[in-house]
Amino acid sequence: MRVLVLGGDGFCGWPSALHLSEHGHDVTIVDNLVRRRADDELGVQSLTPIATMSERIQAWYEVSGRQIGFADIDVAHDYDSLVRLLDSARPDSVVHFAEQRSAPYSMKDPAHKRYTIDNNLNATNNLIVAIIALGLDTHVVHLGSMGVYGYETVPVDLPEGYLTVSYPDREGEMHSRDILYPTLPGSVYHLSKSLDQLLFQFYARNDGVRVTDLHQGIVWGTQTEETERDPRLMNRFDYDGDYGTVLNRFVVEAAVGYPLTVHGSGGQTRAFINVRDTVRCIRLAVESGDEVSGQVRVMNQMTETHRVSTLARLVADTLGAEVNTVANPRQEADQNELSARNDRLLGLGLEPITLRSGLLEAEAELARQFADRVDTKRIPAKSYWNKNRRTAVEGDSV
Amino acid sequence: MRVLVLGGDGFCGWPSALHLSEHGHDVTIVDNLVRRRADDELGVQSLTPIATMSERIQAWYEVSGRQIGFADIDVAHDYDSLVRLLDSARPDSVVHFAEQRSAPYSMKDPAHKRYTIDNNLNATNNLIVAIIALGLDTHVVHLGSMGVYGYETVPVDLPEGYLTVSYPDREGEMHSRDILYPTLPGSVYHLSKSLDQLLFQFYARNDGVRVTDLHQGIVWGTQTEETERDPRLMNRFDYDGDYGTVLNRFVVEAAVGYPLTVHGSGGQTRAFINVRDTVRCIRLAVESGDEVSGQVRVMNQMTETHRVSTLARLVADTLGAEVNTVANPRQEADQNELSARNDRLLGLGLEPITLRSGLLEAEAELARQFADRVDTKRIPAKSYWNKNRRTAVEGDSV
Repeated sequence: MRVLVLGGDGFCGWPSALHLSEHGHDVTIVDNLVRRRADDELGVQSLTPIATMSERIQAWYEVSGRQIGFADIDVAHDYDSLVRLLDSARPDSVVHFAEQRSAPYSMKDPAHKRYTIDNNLNATNNLIVAIIALGLDTHVVHLGSMGVYGYETVPVDLPEGYLTVSYPDREGEMHSRDILYPTLPGSVYHLSKSLDQLLFQFYARNDGVRVTDLHQGIVWGTQTEETERDPRLMNRFDYDGDYGTVLNRFVVEAAVGYPLTVHGSGGQTRAFINVRDTVRCIRLAVESGDEVSGQVRVMNQMTETHRVSTLARLVADTLGAEVNTVANPRQEADQNELSARNDRLLGLGLEPITLRSGLLEAEAELARQFADRVDTKRIPAKSYWNKNRRTAVEGDSV
Repeated sequence: MRVLVLGGDGFCGWPSALHLSEHGHDVTIVDNLVRRRADDELGVQSLTPIATMSERIQAWYEVSGRQIGFADIDVAHDYDSLVRLLDSARPDSVVHFAEQRSAPYSMKDPAHKRYTIDNNLNATNNLIVAIIALGLDTHVVHLGSMGVYGYETVPVDLPEGYLTVSYPDREGEMHSRDILYPTLPGSVYHLSKSLDQLLFQFYARNDGVRVTDLHQGIVWGTQTEETERDPRLMNRFDYDGDYGTVLNRFVVEAAVGYPLTVHGSGGQTRAFINVRDTVRCIRLAVESGDEVSGQVRVMNQMTETHRVSTLARLVADTLGAEVNTVANPRQEADQNELSARNDRLLGLGLEPITLRSGLLEAEAELARQFADRVDTKRIPAKSYWNKNRRTAVEGDSV
């Protein structure tokens, strides 16, 4: 299949592009390389050294004999270039990672809140509008987030996108209806994914655009079968307070002897997936595009759930580390339960890698190898969700 | 109260600004005058001649002795100017009309779809982010739309914003939960209002921002008590296929001897409100801002519902006109029922003006007075919702 990977320079986008290429798909990466500029802005670098896009593509050609195309386009703000590319590529599928993907980054200050909404919404809208304008039958595979479900108080296994609810008519008789799961996002980043959902719902109904929305859990791990084949293919690994996801951050902390930073009680339960499973899920979604017509297909792209405090304990015990509880910069419940269905991706053939498979030790080895690249000042999360959360940590004077 | 009216040059914004001023509020209009440029773009003009903003403000001062301020700011794209204004004005309330408000305009082509999403979302996000950044306790009164509820198949009286639904937990036991009414918007314009809802939900929960979201029906009528006081205060009246709302369009058609254009079967049922009630509702919302804390307050700003075919018949019989059925350019059901609660605004003291109050004849008189300004070529709606709707009218060659 001809596949465009928007955001193909990022943590999930790059290994997904390689995996799709390895499996015979004709891949073109579309990226404005903004994630690298965010590193510069934040004064931090990936734990792992990452090559330039041209080095990456050259290395992949050398090890695999496969060509990957590249177009430097700001999908959110350069609609005309996007249209020209889509018109010439006429892709069977577009994998859409071209969104700002960090919750703390999205909450730092007004500029970052505004950037996240503007970038993520316009990127999605431009893509869909262009597909409609060109009359393409392209299948859009979008990276959503488990965070769109928000804080559920009913003890359910979160379904995949839709919920059957009942309510009474004006005579009091009960009726059932399938609705998009009521969204209750916990950050501007998650909000942007909730907004995306409504765009997809509308354009699927109005124009028959075919969309798969993958509600992904927190990704852990770094390398995949493809990125391991050459040092120039190495994936990025974020450990900083903005882009570092919780499990990867714990591993780096353990590797450099920094106490594991648990936010609040650690009672938060989160959904997880290993990056090796992420790339397989993306491929399974792309290759099953023919299944999608009419309603948006939503799949929960996660393989397991864990309480943060349990993860911290596991990392501490496995790798040897202290656990340090810090005030939670996020506006969120101290404790929550979370359980979700992932039948759709299992049904497509996903065989989950779980945390107990020894990969944690491999991650720690990678972290130790590049420990000298870690700036421990960048580890604490300093993006406060609101005034109260800031005051709780920094006091009233700030 | 100190009140900013964003979009205070528009059809609802201008008379609302005057009404708030008349009732003693200290009003500043914020508008980039884009609605006037849309007239130029579409090659059409308001049926009624409208004065420039400086003439309008001068005339209001002459007839009322009251000052209205004006700031020419693009709220969606000039955040810094918005922040400076909010910081110096420190308003008790901001009435937010600063959104592209036509469904057909939003569906014309890629550029208009993109403009509507970009403008409406960034305007709302900029406003809320600025209020949070400045630490203001400003109450935001936003114009939503009855269209966010979308196409309801259950015979309910639409509640005001929230719906209590039931669903089973993993053991099969039923639980109740209040959710935002499941949105199913019918155009990119209505979609933008559904997106706004999620922004408000998030920022109310995360930062305690106080918001009233007014889900308004289709506005009919032109003049209000305030705009009638001087010809330079006259409100705009849109009759064209993009901005003309259904009832006002029928009145102009009757006045110039053009057959009433009913889309499809005319079986669509819509919610309506007279512009004189719109301005009262805005004032009631502003003046009751102290009631709002925590959850977003949603009020249905409509006073009656009518089937389009019934309205056409009423106008035809009252004013003398032919009724002409044309292919529906919109992707929508041929027929729907619609009934909604408006208890909240009634509870605040709204006494609805209904269609039977003789105002229809006054509207027709206004239309006859300015009939020479009507360009009948601009009456047909030529914005097609999708490829199939276009083909049904214009054939495959287009």
